[in-house]
Amino acid sequence: MKQVNVGLIGFGTVGKGVAKALLSKKKDLRERSGVSINLVKIADKDLRPRKGVRVPKRLLTRKVDSVIKDRSIDIVVELIGGFHPAKEIILKSLTLGKHVVTANKALLAKHGKEIFTVASRFRARIGFEASVGGGIPIINALRRGFVSNDIELIYGILNGTSNFILSRMSEEGCTFKRALKEAQAKGIAEKNPKLDIDGTDSSHKLAILALLGFGLNIKLNDIYVEGIEDLDPMDIQYARDWGYEVKLLAIAKKIGNELDLRVHPTLISSSRILASVKDENNAIFIKGDMIGESLLYGKGAGSLPTASSVVSDITEIAKNVGDFKKERSAFRLGFNSGVKKVRKINDLTTGYYIRFAAIDRPGVLSGVSNVLAKNKISIATVAQKERKKGQPVPIVMLTHDANEGRMNKALAKINRLPFITKKIVKIRIER
Amino acid sequence: MKQVNVGLIGFGTVGKGVAKALLSKKKDLRERSGVSINLVKIADKDLRPRKGVRVPKRLLTRKVDSVIKDRSIDIVVELIGGFHPAKEIILKSLTLGKHVVTANKALLAKHGKEIFTVASRFRARIGFEASVGGGIPIINALRRGFVSNDIELIYGILNGTSNFILSRMSEEGCTFKRALKEAQAKGIAEKNPKLDIDGTDSSHKLAILALLGFGLNIKLNDIYVEGIEDLDPMDIQYARDWGYEVKLLAIAKKIGNELDLRVHPTLISSSRILASVKDENNAIFIKGDMIGESLLYGKGAGSLPTASSVVSDITEIAKNVGDFKKERSAFRLGFNSGVKKVRKINDLTTGYYIRFAAIDRPGVLSGVSNVLAKNKISIATVAQKERKKGQPVPIVMLTHDANEGRMNKALAKINRLPFITKKIVKIRIER
Repeated sequence: MKQVNVGLIGFGTVGKGVAKALLSKKKDLRERSGVSINLVKIADKDLRPRKGVRVPKRLLTRKVDSVIKDRSIDIVVELIGGFHPAKEIILKSLTLGKHVVTANKALLAKHGKEIFTVASRFRARIGFEASVGGGIPIINALRRGFVSNDIELIYGILNGTSNFILSRMSEEGCTFKRALKEAQAKGIAEKNPKLDIDGTDSSHKLAILALLGFGLNIKLNDIYVEGIEDLDPMDIQYARDWGYEVKLLAIAKKIGNELDLRVHPTLISSSRILASVKDENNAIFIKGDMIGESLLYGKGAGSLPTASSVVSDITEIAKNVGDFKKERSAFRLGFNSGVKKVRKINDLTTGYYIRFAAIDRPGVLSGVSNVLAKNKISIATVAQKERKKGQPVPIVMLTHDANEGRMNKALAKINRLPFITKKIVKIRIER
Repeated sequence: MKQVNVGLIGFGTVGKGVAKALLSKKKDLRERSGVSINLVKIADKDLRPRKGVRVPKRLLTRKVDSVIKDRSIDIVVELIGGFHPAKEIILKSLTLGKHVVTANKALLAKHGKEIFTVASRFRARIGFEASVGGGIPIINALRRGFVSNDIELIYGILNGTSNFILSRMSEEGCTFKRALKEAQAKGIAEKNPKLDIDGTDSSHKLAILALLGFGLNIKLNDIYVEGIEDLDPMDIQYARDWGYEVKLLAIAKKIGNELDLRVHPTLISSSRILASVKDENNAIFIKGDMIGESLLYGKGAGSLPTASSVVSDITEIAKNVGDFKKERSAFRLGFNSGVKKVRKINDLTTGYYIRFAAIDRPGVLSGVSNVLAKNKISIATVAQKERKKGQPVPIVMLTHDANEGRMNKALAKINRLPFITKKIVKIRIER
């Protein structure tokens, strides 16, 4: 039977799950793949035993190089995350003829092109199923299952922390701060949750999906990103009243030869299946010319779900180790979709949820709607919410599709109207 | 560049979609796979042109043998459906060293073992992504993405016709007959919808999923099957009142070394994502020890979604044509899960929705609950629905988990009580 040797770099949360699976499920994996997959080395700065997994001491090393340079190792699994030395580890492994499996979305989002090019040159495979959507087999679905499709759009709920917070805010009406605390207490949010809640993490994953689905190599700065930190539970409740849920959506949408690419809180109809994605779960909704609408749902993070995807990459590569040399190129990343560039956010056309706080007096609504009308923004629904004596009244509205640039111009103007008392809230709608 | 030749047998709804994709997307598929995939023959009894796809006349033939015996053809795509001559076509193609792609769930459910064994012996691949869930990449997810998981349970909404009918009955409160008519008018249900609505089609797909997920080769007769033909819209509405939707679920659940395997209308909580699967859409919910809970959703039928899966199988096989000979075995179907046999339906433990129609007089509820208590069935909720003078009163209840055998015994006894006027309705609940 074919023997394939694996070296693991990074023995943290995911690394632990991978080690556990490779060691405890060796026999199952052998039966299912026809290959004997041997975990032969684990490199980490911290060599203390980990709870829940028993690793033979001889596997452990502090020296990353002793993994990369081990000629018996066929597959290097990079699970330390971050840019350095993760990038160097991956590039060095590839140039030494090893295949690589990684969960490093930030690195692939930023340096994917370089890494994939090197992999291709050295006829090495790089597996990254775990980089987007944890245990959800979305990369494989995009690269294989949907290979005959022209992808029209991708909506992703790609960050479990944010989705958990939004679920709490929606179901319990609590504030962002309180929901974040609950998430931290449950181990769903990190101590420093910045990259999760400000949309950065979602934008990394979106860059990878956009590369696969549309063949466009994205500069991260080209993705418009808004996080959920400033969301008021009031808006989530008002949205609910109108039959919408607020989700942090990562959106990639083909419009002619441009790609509309953005991450922001979004109102979506409660009747859509995406609106049912709750708690720390992730989901990716895809529209293709053949499949129509499809969705993949599951745990987007965590030790075992992410390890499940890492091990599936390892197994797929292991089955084919030794067969790759003859391939013209191991990488045909990205469907050629005719997309040439990222669409400017000001060119966006979408519906909006708007909330004003105004002093309660005659002429407020006519003043606001006048400015909107002049900017060709038409109101679909408007409601004045409960008055409290002496307090400004919240006025909420949904607009028909409008242009983002015009909307921003209109809102700036409205903000200067004398009876408007606070910063205006604007949340985009996907219909 | 590698050239791979494909012969298509069956030029119906799906065949048309496959031909269209292979012909019109040839360049895209070549770029994405690195292989030139050539459709060289199409066999069908009816050679008239098909709407929406232009096929060069020289490709068309009435002779199936001229496809199977064509030595230039690497992959035979069987899309005629049914048992004969589909089985003979597939077996003959495999023994002649060709790889096979099929969407034939009935055939695989009944003769899968024989077909997979022949494929393995002749080192041929057999792709069947399209046999379950149309455009949903569930087969690939089970075989590759979730390879490291011990599957605990699979819930499938596997029949679009039934799901469409149930959605209409739930949302509009209409009868089964009326909903079926609407489905037929929309081309969602066939003229003869028997196999779709009586659960047979779902049971075929369940057999395939059970083989992959649990390694158990199923006899179709071992699957307990109930269809949706007898559902009363009243029950769907009462279930809704209690926060449940009624879905035709195909269930495979591991209990020790037995597999609980059944297809029947099922109450599931409206807050579950499966309950959001509406209209003719399909979904498969999977629980594994590593991924936790996962779901794949999409179009379960139709020309293009199904063709999308067929073409993805063709493309995957095409990439590897010529590399298979050295494999010890091309097939490692089915995860060894320790499951030995199908669990008897009378051993089932589950919750139940029960509706009685009773003459409205004192002692009815005590009479019924007495019989239930004697059979160790405990009531969770009970409601007496609106009375109409002179009419029997519907009494509906949800039970806690109870044993199916005891439940049937109790219901038989209750049915003989003097104040019970109609056949009792029993629908199982999955919590």
